[in-house]
Amino acid sequence: MSRRASDVYYGHMNTQIVAVDHAVPINVQTAENLSPLIGRTAEWIRENAGVDRRYTSQLNDDPAKLVAGIARPIIDQWGVPDLVIHAGTMPRQLLPDTSVFVMRELGLSGIPGFTVNAACLSFLVAMRTATSFIADGSHQRILICSSEFGTHARNFNQPESAALIGDGAAAMMLSATEMQVGIRHYAMESWPESAELAEFRGGGFKFQPTNPGTTESDNQFHMDGIKLLRFMAPKLTRFLRRFLHDCQLEWKDIDLVVPHQTSGSGMKLLHRLGIPSDKIVDILSDYGNCAAASMPMALSVARQEGRIQVGDNILLLGTASGLSIGAALVRW
Amino acid sequence: MSRRASDVYYGHMNTQIVAVDHAVPINVQTAENLSPLIGRTAEWIRENAGVDRRYTSQLNDDPAKLVAGIARPIIDQWGVPDLVIHAGTMPRQLLPDTSVFVMRELGLSGIPGFTVNAACLSFLVAMRTATSFIADGSHQRILICSSEFGTHARNFNQPESAALIGDGAAAMMLSATEMQVGIRHYAMESWPESAELAEFRGGGFKFQPTNPGTTESDNQFHMDGIKLLRFMAPKLTRFLRRFLHDCQLEWKDIDLVVPHQTSGSGMKLLHRLGIPSDKIVDILSDYGNCAAASMPMALSVARQEGRIQVGDNILLLGTASGLSIGAALVRW
Repeated sequence: MSRRASDVYYGHMNTQIVAVDHAVPINVQTAENLSPLIGRTAEWIRENAGVDRRYTSQLNDDPAKLVAGIARPIIDQWGVPDLVIHAGTMPRQLLPDTSVFVMRELGLSGIPGFTVNAACLSFLVAMRTATSFIADGSHQRILICSSEFGTHARNFNQPESAALIGDGAAAMMLSATEMQVGIRHYAMESWPESAELAEFRGGGFKFQPTNPGTTESDNQFHMDGIKLLRFMAPKLTRFLRRFLHDCQLEWKDIDLVVPHQTSGSGMKLLHRLGIPSDKIVDILSDYGNCAAASMPMALSVARQEGRIQVGDNILLLGTASGLSIGAALVRW
Repeated sequence: MSRRASDVYYGHMNTQIVAVDHAVPINVQTAENLSPLIGRTAEWIRENAGVDRRYTSQLNDDPAKLVAGIARPIIDQWGVPDLVIHAGTMPRQLLPDTSVFVMRELGLSGIPGFTVNAACLSFLVAMRTATSFIADGSHQRILICSSEFGTHARNFNQPESAALIGDGAAAMMLSATEMQVGIRHYAMESWPESAELAEFRGGGFKFQPTNPGTTESDNQFHMDGIKLLRFMAPKLTRFLRRFLHDCQLEWKDIDLVVPHQTSGSGMKLLHRLGIPSDKIVDILSDYGNCAAASMPMALSVARQEGRIQVGDNILLLGTASGLSIGAALVRW
C-alpha cells in the first residue's frame, strides 16, 4: 500500500454533511468602533486586517448557549446524534470539556462527548475524525460544534491581530450514507518550530494565573503576521501542489474553496497561489477571524447564498497556530 | 445493522499497542509532606484518598518535556509516527495545542498533531480515535501522549480532592496490524447534568484571569466526592453490565482491569461491582490521580510487572469529569 498518511477515500460507509449553520453574538463592532481602542483609523483596519466588522460577545455570554441555538433545530430535523464533538481553541472552562456544556444546553444526556483542539484547524480535524467513526460503522450521526469568543483575548497593543479577531459559532451534522460524498481526501501538517508566531501563552500549565511570572499579555493572543506569512507562503504552495496531485485534480475541477478566514493578507495569498477569486468564499470583512469556527461559518454562508450544488468538489483549507496547514476535499 | 453506537470490532486492519511507558517528575510528596498543607493527618490522607505518595512538578517544569523523555525511545524503536495525539485536560498553553510542543521536543516536524480532551477519559478517546484512523488505512503508526501537572491546581481548602491529585505522564505507540488485537469493543457515555460535581472553572472563556469576578478557587480543581460516588455507582453498574453483555463476556473472561485511578472510594467501588480484586491494576497509592495520564500509566506499570500476556482480554475503564464513563476491551 503506497497510500500517503492522512488520506481518506470512500469506503462502504461514507459521511454526508446533512446540515451546517452559523451564529454570532448580538453586538457588532465596526472598524469605526474598534479604531479608538487600537489607535488606528477605520481605513487602516479595513485595509490591513481586511475586516470591516466583527461580532463581540459579552463577558456573561455563554459560548455553549450560542452554538446550541443553531444545533437545536439541526437535531430536531436530523435526530439525536451518537456523539457530540466540540472543535475549538478556547474552552468554556478547563474541566469538563466544552462538549459537555453544549450537550447540557441541548438537553442531551447519556451519549458521549469530547473536544478536539488543533487551533484554527479544530473543525477540520473533528470532521475527519467523525468521517472515520462513521466509516467503521460504529456511528450513524455526529454533531460537531464550535463556538469561539476570542475577542476577549485581543491585545489592543497589537493592532494587527486585535483588528482581525471576531466571535462566532458553527454547528454541523454528519450522517452515514452509502453515497460517494463527504471527505474524499485529507491532509494536515504541523511545524512546531514556528509555534511562537501565533500563540496564546496562558490558559494552561505554563502561565497559570497564580504564577508570579504571568502577565496580562500572556492571556492575550499574539501574532507576528509578517513572519507568519513569510513562513507559510512556500509551505502552502508546496502543500497545495501535493494535495491537488494526490487528488488528481486541478483548480478547474474545484468548484469552491472554503478557507479559514485568517487575515486580509492571508486571503490575498490564496489569490496569488492561483486559486480563482470567484471560487473563494471570503467572509472575513463581515465576521473577522473566528478561529476554529471560521471555516464552517464560511461553508454555512456559502450554502445559504446558494453557492453549493450537489456533486460539487469543495476544498476546505486552513492554516493555524502550530503552525499547521490542513485541507479536505469534500464532495457535496 | 443493529450495532450500538461506539462499538468497534476487528476489521481488515487492526491496531496493536506496540509500546507504552510512563514517567513522573522528580519530586515525591508523601502523605506526611502533604499533611500540614491540607490540615489532615497522614493517616487520614492514606485512609480517605488512598494515596500514600504522589509526584509533583515544579513551576518551571515542562509537561511536553516530561512525556517526550519516554516517547523518544519509543520512536527510536518503532519509527516516526504519522500523527501525534495529545490526550489531556490541562494544556501546556491555550494555543497552539500541546501536541505541537510534544512534537517540538521530539524534533518532529511536518506531521500532523492535535489534542483530544475528554477529561480523565482523554487517553481512551484518543486510543479509540487512533484505532479508527488506522482501521481506514490512512495511518500506520500513531503516538499518543499525555502529561498532566494537576498538582498546581489543587485547592488545599478541599482536603479530599487535594489529597488525590498527582503529576505524571504516559506515551503509547499504536501500529497497524492484521492480527486480531487492540480495541475490540468500546463505549462512552456523558451526563452533563452533573458537570459541577468535578470541575475546574478557569482556564477558559467563562472565568478568564482578567474577569473581575474570577477568584483564585476558579483556577483550582473542585470535587464533591460523596455526590459524585452516589451519582456514579448505579450508572457504572448499568454501564458495565451492558458493556460485558455487548462483548459477550463475563468477569472470568477478563484477564486484567486497568481503571482510571480515581480515588480510594472509587477503587473500592470497583471491588463492590464484582470485579475480582486480583485483576484490578491499582497504582493509586504510589502515584495518586494523574487525570488523563492515570489509565495508561497503570497499563504501563502492569506491563512492566509482567501482568500482561499475549492474547489477554484487558478492560480499560474510567470515569471522568463530565460526568462520563468510558471503557474499551483490548485484546493484547
